[in-house]
Amino acid sequence: MQNLCINLPGREYEIKIEKGLLKNSGKLIKELINPCKAAIVTDSNVAPLYSETLISSLRENGFSTALITVAPGEGSKSPETLSVLYDKMLEFGITRGDLIIALGGGIVGDLAGFCASTLLRGIPFVQIPTTLLAQIDSSVGGKVAINLPQGKNLVGAFYQPKLVIIDPLCLDTLSDEIFSDGMAEAIKYGVILDEQLFEKIESYPSRTKMGEIIEDVISRCCELKKIVVEEDELDTGKRMILNFGHTFGHAIEKRYNFKDYSHGQAVACGMVMAAEYGEKTGITPLGTSDRIENLVLSFGLPTKIDIDKESLLDAIKIDKKGEGNLVSLILSEKIGKAALVPTEKGKVWIW
Amino acid sequence: MQNLCINLPGREYEIKIEKGLLKNSGKLIKELINPCKAAIVTDSNVAPLYSETLISSLRENGFSTALITVAPGEGSKSPETLSVLYDKMLEFGITRGDLIIALGGGIVGDLAGFCASTLLRGIPFVQIPTTLLAQIDSSVGGKVAINLPQGKNLVGAFYQPKLVIIDPLCLDTLSDEIFSDGMAEAIKYGVILDEQLFEKIESYPSRTKMGEIIEDVISRCCELKKIVVEEDELDTGKRMILNFGHTFGHAIEKRYNFKDYSHGQAVACGMVMAAEYGEKTGITPLGTSDRIENLVLSFGLPTKIDIDKESLLDAIKIDKKGEGNLVSLILSEKIGKAALVPTEKGKVWIW
Repeated sequence: MQNLCINLPGREYEIKIEKGLLKNSGKLIKELINPCKAAIVTDSNVAPLYSETLISSLRENGFSTALITVAPGEGSKSPETLSVLYDKMLEFGITRGDLIIALGGGIVGDLAGFCASTLLRGIPFVQIPTTLLAQIDSSVGGKVAINLPQGKNLVGAFYQPKLVIIDPLCLDTLSDEIFSDGMAEAIKYGVILDEQLFEKIESYPSRTKMGEIIEDVISRCCELKKIVVEEDELDTGKRMILNFGHTFGHAIEKRYNFKDYSHGQAVACGMVMAAEYGEKTGITPLGTSDRIENLVLSFGLPTKIDIDKESLLDAIKIDKKGEGNLVSLILSEKIGKAALVPTEKGKVWIW
Repeated sequence: MQNLCINLPGREYEIKIEKGLLKNSGKLIKELINPCKAAIVTDSNVAPLYSETLISSLRENGFSTALITVAPGEGSKSPETLSVLYDKMLEFGITRGDLIIALGGGIVGDLAGFCASTLLRGIPFVQIPTTLLAQIDSSVGGKVAINLPQGKNLVGAFYQPKLVIIDPLCLDTLSDEIFSDGMAEAIKYGVILDEQLFEKIESYPSRTKMGEIIEDVISRCCELKKIVVEEDELDTGKRMILNFGHTFGHAIEKRYNFKDYSHGQAVACGMVMAAEYGEKTGITPLGTSDRIENLVLSFGLPTKIDIDKESLLDAIKIDKKGEGNLVSLILSEKIGKAALVPTEKGKVWIW
């Protein structure tokens, strides 16, 4: 088992990573929290796959459980679903001495985490992420949120879990598309922070091959995010480099109304665009964009998506990472090293 | 001006207390936060009295302002009003670099503070409490919340403001009843933590007389709460003594459906009951309940409210400070010193 300790002042917690960990989750949680009421939040895709294993393990260890299943998809990160969660938790008789567990991807984690951060001013929270993206990204760092009609993640908190349990076996039931979404982020960590990780992924360039080293890859990604988050918990500086590929990626998502391309697909293409931009402006060594392109292609991710100049500049204009006429582009100085480059918004178009 | 610094790890802030401070609030805020957008939340009682002074002072110091007025009363601490707040703040174009200001009593502070703690994962927050109760109680300690149909303060956070501005002149427009509500809490601080404060209030036993020393009394109460909060920010131990008089008081409020008696009135009576209980069980010196009774009476607060055994025990049964068959009664060992006494719920009735 790989153990990673996240050290934030007064709120240390561990990330435990091992194949098959889900069936031992009750025992792991009990080492930390006395048996109590555990409200499990999941979605209707994940529930039939993994909720029984989790519930059994919790009950064997003395926890009483309630299962709260929401609809899959971004629509559940809403004030309405949050309100249903509050009701069901209170009906279950939850107290500050009890526990909320998120079992699922990033959407379930964000929703359950925000519920945990606010109900009774904070209930202990455990994350059991079941997608690769959630395992390496959203379950580290404590960002939880719901959406408003005006936009994504507009209402939320920084709320650290007591424990994160990562079972890579849960990835087996993911579609190739959802698996690759996670790989886009894993590759991103390599580009911005760790050349060795990038090279490692290059040596296992398919989902099947990746299976051999997935524990190490997840662990290393969590470790890299941990380093960034410990330095900048509240997202005011260094954490920004995690957005490599995201400025362009977000423009693509927006241009296609968040429908035609997944977040990972948009980010994959956004990374290639950011590298191309960096090469053109002399910050990124020539050949970098080709190397990124080859790697994301090997996981079935797109590297070229049509986007017109106007859509790109429009999206950048309202980018929340921008100030006035400038946008902070995250570029690659070489594989493994990122740089923040304030750029005039109008000059972002090179294609 | 009296200055009090609240020291919580990473989130220090000052409480500034002086008659007439409201008209200088813009300048005080500017010393801390660069001119930005300031969204002021208030209620329709307070708005006509004080919003213009605040807005002028903010504008003179370069802030742009929006005034958001909610209906007075507990009903506004709702998910519905919160949602209206989110909408109006976003319409105003608020960002994490801007500011939310609560101008009003505890209800406005709780609502605006919870909005500030969650919108965009946290927006800087300034409290300008205008009731005595809010000045000495709810504006110190960072508890913010809204109600759910199931109960009060069920959804909330611990979120510290950047600054608290207390202008005792704002108290002049309070009704006697609302002023006395605050005095009940001031007397409570004396009973549990500070004999000198209790004696000082005894020497100025009316609203008019209190006017002469109100700055000192507010300052001392804030200081006492500060000591308790710094020791127990998240309300897991010592902070419980602040509930002196509240177990019995809450039973009274509940018995009368939170209608016939105000919180302060119920607490005043609850303190006398707690002292009587303490005397009967030998923990509290004889004569203490009389002394408390005389003092609360001098501020027009009730000391005897009819409550039957069954209502009292029923309310205690679901007290969130209780565990199993025990309730933690906060009793007085002498004026100025409180003790936590685990007590069998059934034995609480002595009348």
